[in-house]
Amino acid sequence: MKEGAINIGLIGLGTVGSGTFELLQRNSDLIRRRAGCGINIRRIAVRQKDKPRSVDVAPDLLTEDAWEIVNDPAVEVVVEVMGGVEPARALLLSAIEQGKSVVTANKELLAKHGAQLMDAAREKRVDVNFEGSVAGGIPLITPLKQSLAANRIERVTGILNGTTNYILTRMAREGLDFDEALREAQQKGFAESDPSSDVDGHDAAYKLAIVSAIAFGSRIPVEEIFREGISRIRIQDIRYAAELGYVIKLLAIAQSESEGFELRVHPTLLPVEHPLASVSDEFNAIMVEGDGVGRVMFYGKGAGAGPTGSAVVADIIDTARNILHGATGRIPCTCDQSLPLRRYEDVKSMFYFRMLVADRPGVLARIAGILGEEGVSIASMIQKGEQGRLAEVVWITHRARQKAVDRSIQRIQETDIVPQITNVIHVTE
Amino acid sequence: MKEGAINIGLIGLGTVGSGTFELLQRNSDLIRRRAGCGINIRRIAVRQKDKPRSVDVAPDLLTEDAWEIVNDPAVEVVVEVMGGVEPARALLLSAIEQGKSVVTANKELLAKHGAQLMDAAREKRVDVNFEGSVAGGIPLITPLKQSLAANRIERVTGILNGTTNYILTRMAREGLDFDEALREAQQKGFAESDPSSDVDGHDAAYKLAIVSAIAFGSRIPVEEIFREGISRIRIQDIRYAAELGYVIKLLAIAQSESEGFELRVHPTLLPVEHPLASVSDEFNAIMVEGDGVGRVMFYGKGAGAGPTGSAVVADIIDTARNILHGATGRIPCTCDQSLPLRRYEDVKSMFYFRMLVADRPGVLARIAGILGEEGVSIASMIQKGEQGRLAEVVWITHRARQKAVDRSIQRIQETDIVPQITNVIHVTE
Repeated sequence: MKEGAINIGLIGLGTVGSGTFELLQRNSDLIRRRAGCGINIRRIAVRQKDKPRSVDVAPDLLTEDAWEIVNDPAVEVVVEVMGGVEPARALLLSAIEQGKSVVTANKELLAKHGAQLMDAAREKRVDVNFEGSVAGGIPLITPLKQSLAANRIERVTGILNGTTNYILTRMAREGLDFDEALREAQQKGFAESDPSSDVDGHDAAYKLAIVSAIAFGSRIPVEEIFREGISRIRIQDIRYAAELGYVIKLLAIAQSESEGFELRVHPTLLPVEHPLASVSDEFNAIMVEGDGVGRVMFYGKGAGAGPTGSAVVADIIDTARNILHGATGRIPCTCDQSLPLRRYEDVKSMFYFRMLVADRPGVLARIAGILGEEGVSIASMIQKGEQGRLAEVVWITHRARQKAVDRSIQRIQETDIVPQITNVIHVTE
Repeated sequence: MKEGAINIGLIGLGTVGSGTFELLQRNSDLIRRRAGCGINIRRIAVRQKDKPRSVDVAPDLLTEDAWEIVNDPAVEVVVEVMGGVEPARALLLSAIEQGKSVVTANKELLAKHGAQLMDAAREKRVDVNFEGSVAGGIPLITPLKQSLAANRIERVTGILNGTTNYILTRMAREGLDFDEALREAQQKGFAESDPSSDVDGHDAAYKLAIVSAIAFGSRIPVEEIFREGISRIRIQDIRYAAELGYVIKLLAIAQSESEGFELRVHPTLLPVEHPLASVSDEFNAIMVEGDGVGRVMFYGKGAGAGPTGSAVVADIIDTARNILHGATGRIPCTCDQSLPLRRYEDVKSMFYFRMLVADRPGVLARIAGILGEEGVSIASMIQKGEQGRLAEVVWITHRARQKAVDRSIQRIQETDIVPQITNVIHVTE
């Protein structure tokens, strides 16, 4: 067993990097005891050395050249918290090829190029740890790889993006419309100035790809995940959903059924009594369903310096333990299958429709008739406030195939009785 | 790296043993892929070989002598799911001394003799894994030892006993009294015929001792945990609590504050919006608060063949991975401190009092006066239905020291105005 301290190099000193640095400093005694050795930060790569920083770093630790870290023979673990695909991919691949273990919180890199990194790591028998890439500080990757390893995973359902959850919560609680809630999230630092990665569901799709690969043991082509963001959700939808006993959340869903394998990210009406329904503000939560364990749920903060730093440092400790015991590569990637994805049009779901219809006798019967002909059966319907000679109607359907729903909508739009189908949203039980 | 299959011996084939056996059979392909080798059940010790069983076991696998398993040189991992202190302790100690790793779901054994097992295991550099001992299938031990290892843990709050949670849920939902709800739980198999281990809080205290040892890095003398069961809780308490915005749960609490270290198991009024408040029926949940991660919560089924089997098999897989990599003992016990426990009378808490008082002017003022003199300040009060010349009054206090509360109660009882203090229950924020 190796003794002393493990040398690490940190690439990136933004929010996550600072959180990582701070925890390593503040809890160094406790970390030494748990890891079995000290963790020594040998070098930190930053974009600009002389920038003012929130953490107190000795200036001679800093470099503007990340390759200095990767190529330093004394660095045993490369910790990448810079984000983005390049140069992170090239840096980590080189580190792995030099026999170093790596820790990363880079969801985009893993979702797009995880397989390449994992193959290289398996070859070199080093660790690639990435607890911080999904759901911040919430233990999820390690529980999936270890504590739930006895289970055939049937379904993963998650609120994996804090920004959109914050926006939806503010809309529901304060009656804000989407644009107002987004602006507020930006002011509070919960949303970026370009919010599209969060709002359009890219961020959640990256995380779903990472989690599903482990849960289902399959390569996941992230670009094939069905993805729809929250910008079409209106305050009216949230209010009607509430009347019907639902909340609206941006859910990431992966499930394996006899009919195929499904991956999707979209706004969803969730019954208020569902364990994920009460997950509010910027919090994240993930429900995992396995054939042995049943339903388990993990809840906490999905972002921020402290939470994500907690995950990154945990990975560093675990890697250090493996280095001490000569056991890096202890849990290799086993995502070797290529499960065929069910085509989106074949996915079955319940649906919510909101539409403006002509306010005259026979109209609802005609719509219901079209739905029935397409095999879409109605679970409930409410008719709301009139707008001139139009009425607003909300329907909830039973489970139906996406294809049948699309066809119904097209046929309804071709009539002259429904000037506008305002929204169509998935519903889950 | 070792190849092939790992031989395990299973001691016990009751609920947990059967769940373990079933998962190992059903998911053997998937487990082989994740563990990196097959898991071969070499022998199973049972009390009585010819008993009818729910699982389909080849008769020649069975033995009535557990020592045959422990002493079999081919058995590399001893899996103990028989429960109770002896002979489990002697069997596991002998296995460890022979250099075998062990997996156990035995909370009583770990709470009472964990230190002895851990010391022996450290000496021999073998694994002692015990995910199944706390909260069934919910990943908790591994997340604490690994995913949260960067954090100084500040507080652990758990609903760790499914039986009492089921009883309290039934009382709240159906208006059953304690005895009726207990009988129902027994009929449904959620409570034992002798329910005292669950109902009196022993079971939760064992689990709290195990979790706290890891979270706070300290030996925990389980007999020093303050413990109070739920048998004093009446349906009236649950109703008054609801009126005041609380639910009543049996909580296990461990916290480390500047003033000292606290461990206690007792019924608690919890605000309805608290994440643990909606944990119902036989479900368990644990909230962990760390200095980096903030609050994280784990939720799921805390007992049963499938959930606990899931945890036991996960431990077997993890042990197998360590054996393959020559890395058993990779995460040794680090619970070496002996944190001094704060005396129960020095613990600070909010409190709920329910009392019958003489229904005449000046009585409430006199009670309030005594509380004030002892430094117990009142947060809210409701006066309820009269019983003859008596009225029922419920008080909620602000945070006060247990000692001051005890003294107040004694002084109030010495007056002639309060014939009965019906209940005193902790309240948390």
